[in-house]
Amino acid sequence: MIGVFDSGVGGLSVVRHLLERFNADIIYLGDTARLPYGTKSAQTVVKYSLQNAEFLAEKGVDAIVVACNTASSVALDALKQAFDLPVFGVIEPAAKKAAEYGNVCVIGTESTISSNAYKKAIKKININTHVTQLACPLFVPLVESGWIDNEITYQVAQRYIGHVQCDAMILGCTHYPLLKRVLKSIKPVVMIDSGEALAEALQSHKDLFAGSGRLECYTTDAHRKFAEMGRIFLGSAFNGVKHIDLTSEGGDG
Amino acid sequence: MIGVFDSGVGGLSVVRHLLERFNADIIYLGDTARLPYGTKSAQTVVKYSLQNAEFLAEKGVDAIVVACNTASSVALDALKQAFDLPVFGVIEPAAKKAAEYGNVCVIGTESTISSNAYKKAIKKININTHVTQLACPLFVPLVESGWIDNEITYQVAQRYIGHVQCDAMILGCTHYPLLKRVLKSIKPVVMIDSGEALAEALQSHKDLFAGSGRLECYTTDAHRKFAEMGRIFLGSAFNGVKHIDLTSEGGDG
Repeated sequence: MIGVFDSGVGGLSVVRHLLERFNADIIYLGDTARLPYGTKSAQTVVKYSLQNAEFLAEKGVDAIVVACNTASSVALDALKQAFDLPVFGVIEPAAKKAAEYGNVCVIGTESTISSNAYKKAIKKININTHVTQLACPLFVPLVESGWIDNEITYQVAQRYIGHVQCDAMILGCTHYPLLKRVLKSIKPVVMIDSGEALAEALQSHKDLFAGSGRLECYTTDAHRKFAEMGRIFLGSAFNGVKHIDLTSEGGDG
Repeated sequence: MIGVFDSGVGGLSVVRHLLERFNADIIYLGDTARLPYGTKSAQTVVKYSLQNAEFLAEKGVDAIVVACNTASSVALDALKQAFDLPVFGVIEPAAKKAAEYGNVCVIGTESTISSNAYKKAIKKININTHVTQLACPLFVPLVESGWIDNEITYQVAQRYIGHVQCDAMILGCTHYPLLKRVLKSIKPVVMIDSGEALAEALQSHKDLFAGSGRLECYTTDAHRKFAEMGRIFLGSAFNGVKHIDLTSEGGDG
């Protein structure tokens, strides 16, 4: 059984890849009560990530997947130190794919970008790859507004990435694959979906991930939006969500 | 000494009015570690609001001002019950002003709008005022991106409010006064700033608010952005911010 966490519902795009590829048994935690992580300090994101992982560890998972790019960027080492479990993040696999190209653009939240996590990981593999990094803070609220393919979203994307020269682009946030069509119409380059890259990379741990496709979702906020978005990300594989509280007695302190 | 809280930095627009009008002594708490409140459930916003107020009460404040529209919409009764202090929110004063008009539009976050708090408050005063309510979830990230007066913001605003007929508009979110120019260019109607309306209404409690203009700011996240935005909202009156933690041992549980 695998534990997956994200700041919200976006990590279900990673879950989709894990279900498709491994039929994994998954416990998913979306920390919607404290999202977004992408505009918060590294210190705060580390703290929330440890609390999320603690919840999953108590559920008895065999490994933890950090679906959130921001948490993968800033909290992976802390998680590996704190838990005696394999911990996988979305940065390394996407960086590995990107390092095959000469000129890469990474798009993500403010925290992911300012952490330089993707850039460092790419440079470690191929020092010659040129890396441009761009924070795109409006993409998540645009996707969550359902403005996925409209004129305004196109203009925002144009403003963010229109000027960039690159051969490949890392979609460094779980929400961005939903904008792939808009992004590709502006930059017709290779799009690297970090969740998909992670699922591919986990092929070498496939025994750990084999299961019967059971999915159990938890959210830290009771908002109906999680279920709505869950169906967008997962379709009929989404089977409801339970509410848990990490911010009172015990869990959060 | 007055305690003011908000989900983030936006409540400093209310602080500005309190400083200008009363030279109040203020302890401000911006719960940036868990912002935004506007997309979260009422239950979660009530919990966070009680924790914020607890922090202020422990500092020995004589009254609590809820600068956040979302928290004012859903948590005011819970706060009044939990604390033996005067508690003031931003809904009533703006509703009172709006009730003088025949046709009012309220704009705010998803939670503020779905709470119907402004609509209920206006109808209680004047049943004949027609009230349209519109959630504008992209306005906060646009303001926080510094996109205050550009073409994209204009188009987003056009899409949100372009079709509305009204004589007056309640800016039901602390960030929206920064968009007043754009909003007014689309709808040249009376703009009711809920923070300004609150400061006006507090004139009748002016003894409680009189002070020497001391301001002490706390934030639950360590992010540098608070200071940047603080200077935008308050100018030279902003004198720095301290970090506190409501999400571990004690405070948050």
